Formats: sequence, structure tokens, C-alpha cells
Amino acid sequence: MHEDPTKNLIGSSSSSSSSINMSFLFARGPPRRGPILCIVALLFLLVLYQLGIICTTTKEPPNAIMMPKDKYVMGSGDQKVYPYDRNMPLIFIGGVPRSGTTLMRAMLDAHPEVRCGQETRIIPRILQMRSHWVKSERESVRLEEAGVSKEVMDSAIAAFCLEVIARHGEPAPRLCNKDPLTLKMGSYVLDLFPNAKFLFMVRDGRATVHSIISRKVTITGFDLTSYRQCMIKWNQAILMMHKQCREVGPDRCLMVPYEQLVLHPREWMQKILGFLDVPWNESVLHHEEFINKPGGVPLSKVERSSDQVIKPVNLEALTKWVGNIPEDVVHDMAELAPMLSILNYDPYANPPNYGAPDKLVSENTRKVLTNGQRWDNMARELDLLRTVTYLPPQIANNASTDNDVNNA
Amino acid sequence: MHEDPTKNLIGSSSSSSSSINMSFLFARGPPRRGPILCIVALLFLLVLYQLGIICTTTKEPPNAIMMPKDKYVMGSGDQKVYPYDRNMPLIFIGGVPRSGTTLMRAMLDAHPEVRCGQETRIIPRILQMRSHWVKSERESVRLEEAGVSKEVMDSAIAAFCLEVIARHGEPAPRLCNKDPLTLKMGSYVLDLFPNAKFLFMVRDGRATVHSIISRKVTITGFDLTSYRQCMIKWNQAILMMHKQCREVGPDRCLMVPYEQLVLHPREWMQKILGFLDVPWNESVLHHEEFINKPGGVPLSKVERSSDQVIKPVNLEALTKWVGNIPEDVVHDMAELAPMLSILNYDPYANPPNYGAPDKLVSENTRKVLTNGQRWDNMARELDLLRTVTYLPPQIANNASTDNDVNNA
Repeated sequence: MHEDPTKNLIGSSSSSSSSINMSFLFARGPPRRGPILCIVALLFLLVLYQLGIICTTTKEPPNAIMMPKDKYVMGSGDQKVYPYDRNMPLIFIGGVPRSGTTLMRAMLDAHPEVRCGQETRIIPRILQMRSHWVKSERESVRLEEAGVSKEVMDSAIAAFCLEVIARHGEPAPRLCNKDPLTLKMGSYVLDLFPNAKFLFMVRDGRATVHSIISRKVTITGFDLTSYRQCMIKWNQAILMMHKQCREVGPDRCLMVPYEQLVLHPREWMQKILGFLDVPWNESVLHHEEFINKPGGVPLSKVERSSDQVIKPVNLEALTKWVGNIPEDVVHDMAELAPMLSILNYDPYANPPNYGAPDKLVSENTRKVLTNGQRWDNMARELDLLRTVTYLPPQIANNASTDNDVNNA
Repeated sequence: MHEDPTKNLIGSSSSSSSSINMSFLFARGPPRRGPILCIVALLFLLVLYQLGIICTTTKEPPNAIMMPKDKYVMGSGDQKVYPYDRNMPLIFIGGVPRSGTTLMRAMLDAHPEVRCGQETRIIPRILQMRSHWVKSERESVRLEEAGVSKEVMDSAIAAFCLEVIARHGEPAPRLCNKDPLTLKMGSYVLDLFPNAKFLFMVRDGRATVHSIISRKVTITGFDLTSYRQCMIKWNQAILMMHKQCREVGPDRCLMVPYEQLVLHPREWMQKILGFLDVPWNESVLHHEEFINKPGGVPLSKVERSSDQVIKPVNLEALTKWVGNIPEDVVHDMAELAPMLSILNYDPYANPPNYGAPDKLVSENTRKVLTNGQRWDNMARELDLLRTVTYLPPQIANNASTDNDVNNA
């Protein structure tokens, strides 16, 4: 049989060595010795192969190799080893901030096989730093001359991102990252992680902007004193993400309308888990039961959305914006934010009809509205949003914004 | 023996099956079979041990683990595998730019066991980015709340730096990095790489500043129109590096006076290689023979010092500054740059007596001075400094400076 050079090396090395040993032993040894020695030898060769000491095909000439030693992240969990590398099927949740990205990651975090965790903040920054470098022709020449090729740069940035994603939370078989603005550089992220997938959270921009302004969420480029300016900025940001999502294609990027996720969580989570090749699990419909539990939904005390995702999926946030946007901005909405129409949000309806909720969601909403004190208490118990109370204004006003990646 | 649940499944199935086989054989087989099987089994166990599948001590309880898969850097060389990790004895060459850092790395690059390569440019930048983050109290709280602890951050930054250092040049048993300003963050670099060592290039600041100004080397914070301002900036930068060098201690940081290295290359290279635990090799005294050769001294066409290190070690650059510094600056030198005296450069001598050169150096200098055309031709052949000719001024003036790490 002609050896297939692409076939698994374990298989091929074993089969060739076994045929040699067997003919030798069968000719001379007593009948029972052969198979046993053969098994031992096979196992030994297998281990040698695993070590990289032997292999059957050497198409490329052997070269010197720089090889990173193994690094381990210790966690306390199910005693399993999860290897991580650039080919793993990472999940990236993106969107304009205040579009339901935290809800999305909380619902996935509730799944026993997925861990997203808090916004890392530093992943979009290193991606943007690299984007500045490659945009400067002079810098690109200098890096290329320094041996820092695209390949070297990508492997360094991927290594940085992988360490942060793998280590900033509990180990899990499926790792996920939620830094909303990363999607702006979506196709580059796929250069780094070819098997990654994106969930693109889309929400009525009027609701997003109202939330940004009313909750004082600082985003580079957004002027929190102007609904008009923020609607324009929202339009720019979502246009860029929409472009990236289309560019990487439907196998790699799924658009998730926040309103539909909230109205029909079961239907949408089934669609989402199917897209991600993650088996169905009812936990994703009850993320609020896993807040800050091991293997559950870890919350940052200083992320703006933490006090909202402690509640079950509900309709509270859908139409809060109605009546809060200045008349003149409402009047010009279709021109300020043409992406509204493109994403099927009627710019002239205030509010549009988002649809009727599932029974679960109606019940959740009733519970949330009739029992508001309970969630306030819970937020206080979890010490959420403590920065609001104790950080002095000069610190609150300095460089650390909630989201600080510029329009690329 | 209780099975370790974290252990590799291939390994565990192999080891258990081999022990079963052995007891079976020793009890029933003919006498000659025992020793052979025993040797095979021992070898097998040795390999398992090497793999880390079995080990003698398991102090810590088994936990879930995130483990990066192996990554390989292919090079063309001596067919060896060089593992790299944070514990390797990296060499970092630092100093104020234009202080002989390129000569230092070229002399080390000539050594068959060491590879420094060109300035990576991006390593000092990522170090500074991190330094900004930790300086902001608010940002630190946010990162800590996001699970991005010092440990996670350090492992990400170390992974980034390692990928760049290991992959931007040829494989070698001892890797070295020359990004001069990295030494400003020297003690942090030792947090990342506990077995690293620094070579701190020190040079008469007047020569350094004259070189910066006359060669138009852009460094963030340096005003190339003012010798006075540049001397003050030189003093600040070298003060900070001097502090870092003392902080990490004499086992980790060796001060190398440029003038002495140039006057007495053999003596100083012996001292330097001894400090680095690198065996002596005559090649380091003839770096000019290894320019752009495999395993030799790779040059960037756009680094300012490339056209100088193609020449053998010589005295050309020692006193070029004399007579080029404005009178008033010369007059105030001791006050502008108190570090001159601290580093034993007489601020009132123009020039001070740096000492008498070795015979090799005198000969080199004669060759360089009497045969200037030869080096110009060589620089042209190697296409060095091509940016000077073809990059338009608006690109030359943009963000890409030669060295762009601010005073931390």
C-alpha cells in the first residue's frame, strides 16, 4: 500500500513499524511472545511520535526551530486539560456598546461549556495599536526591515490575545470574548483566529444612544451632550461593523437583533448555539441564576451593564428611549442614521413595533417591574457600580473611558 | 497507584497496559525474556517522564488547565529545536539611542550562539502601553475587575514579546533583544523574564547628543534644534536607566562604556560574554565579516546606525562632537548633564581623555579612514538608509519616530 503522506502520523508510524516487528518475531520467537512485544514496541513508537522524535513524512527539509515550552493555566474546576491555540473555535461578541452584548455573553456564560467573562478592555486596544502601525507606510517599512513581518506580528498579537482570553477567567472547552468594538477589526481577527465566529449584536440605535447618554457611558468619539452627534457616531460604528460582518460571511458572523433575542430568547438561543456548534442547554434561558457562581456568569463591579444582567431576560429596556430624544433629532432621524432603515428599524416610528414577547419573557418582565427593590438589593449585595460612589471626579474624567477604540 | 486524572490520555493508557504486560510476562515467560522487556519498559517510562505524563511529585491538587498547544518557528539552520519560554536567559541591550547599542548587538550577533537582530520597535511600545494602564488607578480597577490581574497581563505581554523576539530573526540558542529604551522599564522586564540580563550601553552624552542631532534621529521628547534641550533630555533618560540598572543589581545588569568597548574590544567582550555565560568566540571581534550572512549580523536598511556597523570596530565616532556644541551649552555642561560626572566623563574636558586604543583598533581605524570609499560602496550595495532618498518629507515627518518611548 502506498503511504498517504497526509494521513495521521500516529497511524502511519505504527503500522509500518508493526509490520517490521511482526515479521521478525513470527519467524523466530515462540508464538505468544510476538504480539506482546509488538504491543510494547508500538506503544513505545507512539510515544516517540508524540515527542516528535520520529515521523514518517518529511516533505520539508528539517530546519532549526524555535519552540515555545508548554505554559499552563491552573483553574479550579473539572480537572480537565483544555489546550488552546490559534485554531480553536473562539467566539467573539461584538456590536456598538449598549446593544445587548453583555446580555448575550451572560446567556452564553450560563452554558456549562462556554466562558466569555468580563470585557478585557486590552484586546481591542492592542488590535488598534497594530492597525495604526500598518496604516503608516513608513512604520510598515521599518517593521518589515526589522524582520517583524505580518506573520511575526500576527503571531505576537494572537499570543497576547490568547493569553488574556484563556487566563482572565475560568477554564472552559469553548472560550468567548466580549469586547464590543473588536468587531470593527473583524476580518483581521479571523486572520489571527481562522476558526473564530462572531455574534454581532444589533439594536435600535435610538435605544443604544439613549442608553449611552443616560448612563454616561464614555466612548471615544461620542459627545455625551448631543443626541444628534451620538446618532451620527452610532451610524458610523454600526456601518463599519455591518461591513465587517458581511465581509467575513454568514458562516463566520451571525447578526443578532437585541430586541428579537429579548422577545424570543429560546428561538434565538437555539439559532445562536446552532451557529456556534454548541449543544443546547436550558441554562442559557436562566442566566440570572448563575451570577458570580463557579462556571457561571462572572460580573465586573465597574462595567455599566452589570446591574442589568442580574435580572432575567425582560422587556424593560426596549422602549425607554421613547420621548427622551430631542424633537429636532427625532425629525431628522432617517438622515442622521440611515443604518436604522437598513437594519429594519423604522426611523419614523417612535417606537416601532418590535413584536410580541414569549410567555417566559412577559412573566420575567412582570417579576422585574413588580419587585424592583429586589434587584436593587442584589446589586448592592454584589457591590456593583461602586466606582460611581467612590471614584473622585478627576479620576473619573481621566483617560480611562468605558470603550476607547476610535473609528478605525 | 491512584491515577492522576489530569494526565494525558495517550500516556495513561500506554503506561497501564505496559505494566499489565510486564507482570503477565515475568510470571510465566522463559528466563531471557525478563531483562529485555525490563529495559524496554524502563525506556518507555523514561520517555513518559520526559513527556511530563508521569512525575514523581504532585504537590498541588489537580485542577482544570488551559494549555497552549505547541507553536513552532521554522528557520533554516542547524536542524535543532530551541524551546523558548519566559524562563530562558534572554539578553536585553539598552541605553540612550546613539550610544553604541547597535555595535554591541552586532558584536553579539557575530557570535554563533547569539542572535539579537534588528530593533523590533514594538516591544518598548507594548511595555509602555502597559505602563500607562497600571499608572491609571481607574484603569487598574477596571482591569482587576475584568479578571486581567497582574499575572494575566504579564503573561500576555511576555507572550507577545517572546513571539517577536523568537520569530523576527533566525533561531539561536541564546536570544537577545536590542530596543534601546526598553531598559527604562528594566525591572518590569525582569518580572516578565526572571532570567534575563541587561547590557547597559553608556556613552559620553555630548557624543550621543551630537550624533542624535547631526544624524537627525527622532526620539520622542528630544528637540533636534537644541543641544541644550537634548543634553537635558539625555540626562533624564540615562538617569532613569542608571536607576533601573542599579535596581536590578550587578548580576542582572552590566554597564558597558561605549568608549572602553571601542578602545579595548577583547577585554570588554570577554567581560561581557562572561557576564552572559556565553563561551568565548573570536568572531565577536570581527562582526564586520558577518554582515547579512546566515547566522550573522542582519541589518535593517532603515536603521540609522546600519551604515556604521558595516565597518570594523574603530575610533571614528569617539570625538566627532568636539567643536560642534554651542559655546554656551559647553559652558553649562556640568549643570545641564550632571550624569556626565557621575558616569566619569569630565564635563569640562573637550574632549576628555578616553584612553589609548588596542593595536587591533588602531589598525581598524587606519583602514577605515584611508579607505572611506570602500564603506560607502558597501553601504550602497547593501541598500542601506534608502529611506533618506525615497521617502517623501510628509511621510518622514509623521508619527513613526526612530525611538518613541516617552519618559516613563
